[in-house]
Amino acid sequence: METKNDGPKQEQRLTKKGKETRARIVAAAAKLMFERGVAGTTVEDVQREAKVSASQLYHYFQEKRELVHAVILFQTAQVLSAQEPLLSHLDSIDALWSWRDAIVSLQVERQCRGGCPIGSLASELADSEPVARAELASGFMKWELAIRGGLIAMHERGQLRGDAEPERLALALLTALQGGLLLTQVHRETSPLEVVLDAMLAHIGSFAQS
Amino acid sequence: METKNDGPKQEQRLTKKGKETRARIVAAAAKLMFERGVAGTTVEDVQREAKVSASQLYHYFQEKRELVHAVILFQTAQVLSAQEPLLSHLDSIDALWSWRDAIVSLQVERQCRGGCPIGSLASELADSEPVARAELASGFMKWELAIRGGLIAMHERGQLRGDAEPERLALALLTALQGGLLLTQVHRETSPLEVVLDAMLAHIGSFAQS
Repeated sequence: METKNDGPKQEQRLTKKGKETRARIVAAAAKLMFERGVAGTTVEDVQREAKVSASQLYHYFQEKRELVHAVILFQTAQVLSAQEPLLSHLDSIDALWSWRDAIVSLQVERQCRGGCPIGSLASELADSEPVARAELASGFMKWELAIRGGLIAMHERGQLRGDAEPERLALALLTALQGGLLLTQVHRETSPLEVVLDAMLAHIGSFAQS
Repeated sequence: METKNDGPKQEQRLTKKGKETRARIVAAAAKLMFERGVAGTTVEDVQREAKVSASQLYHYFQEKRELVHAVILFQTAQVLSAQEPLLSHLDSIDALWSWRDAIVSLQVERQCRGGCPIGSLASELADSEPVARAELASGFMKWELAIRGGLIAMHERGQLRGDAEPERLALALLTALQGGLLLTQVHRETSPLEVVLDAMLAHIGSFAQS
């Protein structure tokens, strides 16, 4: 978790204009890395896409890995905020189904392209970049904790039976979602995502009590 | 599916020695692309790893995309055969659990590195390489059909209730597995894989009848 503060710390020292430039660079890098992968994106590509000079880019990011670090934080924030306000309130079976529907709709809108922005980075970087792997793990953990929060609330209110394990269910649900996003991208249709979320919500529903 | 015959057709024309050389090139390419990704692997890297000359490599593969094509077929065959004899006989709840245990053990052996060789290729290539995407989809379909075969057999024998849908359950199980392999790679521990497979097998088990 400690590595996650480098970006924001550096950011605090920037002027408003500096922050805007930095944000433009990060958004450009995120876009390109999402489309072409990290390996397929050069610092020069990012420079062109963000319309900044080489020295401007270097001022904010001395190395490509710093840019990757900022992109991981950016994509994590984007992915989580795109699921709000649903994600913070997954504390009923109905809420879980609404969230499921919203995620499926988003993939339909995107024509099943792209997969998960965090999952794609993870697949590319997990084995080769230890620092990126830890940052991605921490991004997934934020997501998992948001899901877990809702399930724990249901459990505590007695809406899930005592033998339900909200921690395991939350991890299983996020894991299933990742598989669903990947296979939806491969098959170019949402049925993998739908069937796996339906199965997981049926499983969670099997612990429900009124 | 039609693209899948190019490789084997070409292969049939080769002498025994030619087939061996071609196989060595494909295995070398698969190894490097698994470790570094497709974008991170050059034709020259493959040449060095396979210990062949540039003209030898060119004799078998005129373009990198032909090599990628061969790697997809190779990895699909490897992944499926690594799960045998279990994969072809997933026709009881016990068999499903044994398969689950074998997959988890394999990840422990691999120290949770690598993820799924097909899933990793899919994440990298699905959006940028339409032919590769179709080949990967077909590789996943083979896997899905193997799982489906066992579940259909259980359904027909009445070991799964009439309202169970083996096709959906098979796709959900493979999808969950993909998510499990990805998050296991990210977190460097098997709990995501374990909890998602446990949840899916519990869900399938909820349709069981003796």
